[in-house]
Amino acid sequence: MSTEKEIIIKSDNIKFFAIEALKSTSMSEEDAKTIADTLVESELKGVYSHGIQLLPRYVRGLKNGINPKPNIKITNDSGPIATLDGDCGMGQIVSVEAMKLAIKKAKMHGTGIVVARNSNHLGALAYYGMMAASENMISMCTTNAASIMAPWGGTTETLGNNPICWTIPGDENNLVLLDMAVSTAARNKIRVAAAKGEQLPPDWAFDKDGQPTQDPQKALDGLIAPMAGPKGFGLAVIMEILSGVLSGGLIGKELPRDAISSTDIFYPTNTSHYFHVIDISRFCPIDTFKQRIKELSKQIHESHLAKGTSQIFMPGEIEFKTRIKRLKAGIPISESVLINLERLAKELNLSGLKKLTITR
Amino acid sequence: MSTEKEIIIKSDNIKFFAIEALKSTSMSEEDAKTIADTLVESELKGVYSHGIQLLPRYVRGLKNGINPKPNIKITNDSGPIATLDGDCGMGQIVSVEAMKLAIKKAKMHGTGIVVARNSNHLGALAYYGMMAASENMISMCTTNAASIMAPWGGTTETLGNNPICWTIPGDENNLVLLDMAVSTAARNKIRVAAAKGEQLPPDWAFDKDGQPTQDPQKALDGLIAPMAGPKGFGLAVIMEILSGVLSGGLIGKELPRDAISSTDIFYPTNTSHYFHVIDISRFCPIDTFKQRIKELSKQIHESHLAKGTSQIFMPGEIEFKTRIKRLKAGIPISESVLINLERLAKELNLSGLKKLTITR
Repeated sequence: MSTEKEIIIKSDNIKFFAIEALKSTSMSEEDAKTIADTLVESELKGVYSHGIQLLPRYVRGLKNGINPKPNIKITNDSGPIATLDGDCGMGQIVSVEAMKLAIKKAKMHGTGIVVARNSNHLGALAYYGMMAASENMISMCTTNAASIMAPWGGTTETLGNNPICWTIPGDENNLVLLDMAVSTAARNKIRVAAAKGEQLPPDWAFDKDGQPTQDPQKALDGLIAPMAGPKGFGLAVIMEILSGVLSGGLIGKELPRDAISSTDIFYPTNTSHYFHVIDISRFCPIDTFKQRIKELSKQIHESHLAKGTSQIFMPGEIEFKTRIKRLKAGIPISESVLINLERLAKELNLSGLKKLTITR
Repeated sequence: MSTEKEIIIKSDNIKFFAIEALKSTSMSEEDAKTIADTLVESELKGVYSHGIQLLPRYVRGLKNGINPKPNIKITNDSGPIATLDGDCGMGQIVSVEAMKLAIKKAKMHGTGIVVARNSNHLGALAYYGMMAASENMISMCTTNAASIMAPWGGTTETLGNNPICWTIPGDENNLVLLDMAVSTAARNKIRVAAAKGEQLPPDWAFDKDGQPTQDPQKALDGLIAPMAGPKGFGLAVIMEILSGVLSGGLIGKELPRDAISSTDIFYPTNTSHYFHVIDISRFCPIDTFKQRIKELSKQIHESHLAKGTSQIFMPGEIEFKTRIKRLKAGIPISESVLINLERLAKELNLSGLKKLTITR
């Protein structure tokens, strides 16, 4: 991405365009706003992979089997626990419903677990985790995803890179956010290395025989490596179970092939999600909790620096700092993404794109 | 370890000796049996690091500040949530109490979260997870630990290698167990490499300036690396918060320095733990759940093999297979561990060691 020309656009303008584009399907304005908000929040945090580049694919998916007006149903409700059927709606809409319910349950019972099946790509988990954090609650969220990783020692793509996200409330400078895929790197980063003719780091990928490779082309013909070897494989299995098995959804190779890795194709993925929320006030006063997070953050920031490092960051700190900067200065959008958005505007006959303001 | 001579001993004999040794402190027979059981269970699973080699240190710790007769108190109890004060008891005794309570709460409410502060080294988390699995429940357990890892980009030891464990019930061949430290490797493995004069893999350690090193001596003078780089650091922070902050216990550098890495010293560590249990039957019939785990396991086992691999294992499968073998054939104990146990028997004037039976 970094070699490409970038254009700075205000986040509100991106959001406005995304809402218009999503409304062009038969989606409600409210749902369009939610999805647009998740895309813009990712852009603000510097998480390009889950940003506005997904919009053309989402619109395509909504015309290609994803339900723009899902009837999301609670199929199981028992104290702090519930299961949703997402009715093949957008993952964002299903996930916001699920997280709202998990928060409600945590307020009532002290903790809540809501799982959802029959859903789709949900963007970045951090968005739903932040909903819990803003209610002074801890969350752990996960989802399964189309198979792109082989079991440890195997070569058949059987598991998704099943991301996990924890959010921990703190005062505004000390909120903790860890949102990570259990693969070492995204396929997209390997594509970038291939385009630049660069070698990969040693632990990113396997060739088609399951041997470690640093050749990006062999990696693209081969397999994404789990993070930390067998540990990342183990995490992928556990997250598959928490989301896919607990919810009664699809698992592993039952999910359709990867619908997100291609720029042009998008269709229902039938993924499942897991949302766990904990009400901190059941353990201790929230001010005491936040004070302790501040103290831990201080210990971490006060570490001596490794040679070559200029600053230490808490998990999520880079993202939150980027967010503050981009809210003010705008979001750099790469030229290739902008071309795709302009094409989408033309397809949908939208005036929306005209609202994009280039600020420098 | 593998270059050392090993002696095969029946697991029951190891357990008997451990019980006798622990009873020589003023600990109750019941508690001695619990701790002995955790040590033997680790040996059976092939987890040497949490096996009988810890016994002399535990006995020393019990004479050195760890409370052999703790008065474990519930200091907070609210629906599915509770907090325990471990009264500086052995981590195993505190953790079994905490897990029992979490299971009880999950039976009543569908899920339970119990945290404990003022505890000590708890051995392998898998032991407590298996308690939940045997009740057809899912568990996630974690603990903080004495600081041996620096923040990402730093060189000050601030965080433990804070292990995380998930257990998922399945039929007897398909139980899923993931019990992992968030560091890449244990310091003990680096010591072994140093003794053998071998190079370390590239991602195991940093030198004292925080630069990656494959030299085991520089690593011993330096730092353990988190697994998967900043992701492992992030996990260490989250686990520190779930255990240390939620329980009102100590965090990060507030914990005493590493009491377990030395062979001879052991003292209270004041660690905190987190136990989360989920009752599967609130989501779906347990038979349906186990059938789905079996299907996922089948998908994983049916993967094509990478070149050089002869078999694929589910998380925990190697441990469970080792357990069955060792229950029958006995446990290989290295000569150096045996010498330490014999020294302990002499110190405590125990006849217990005579019960050790060498079976080949």
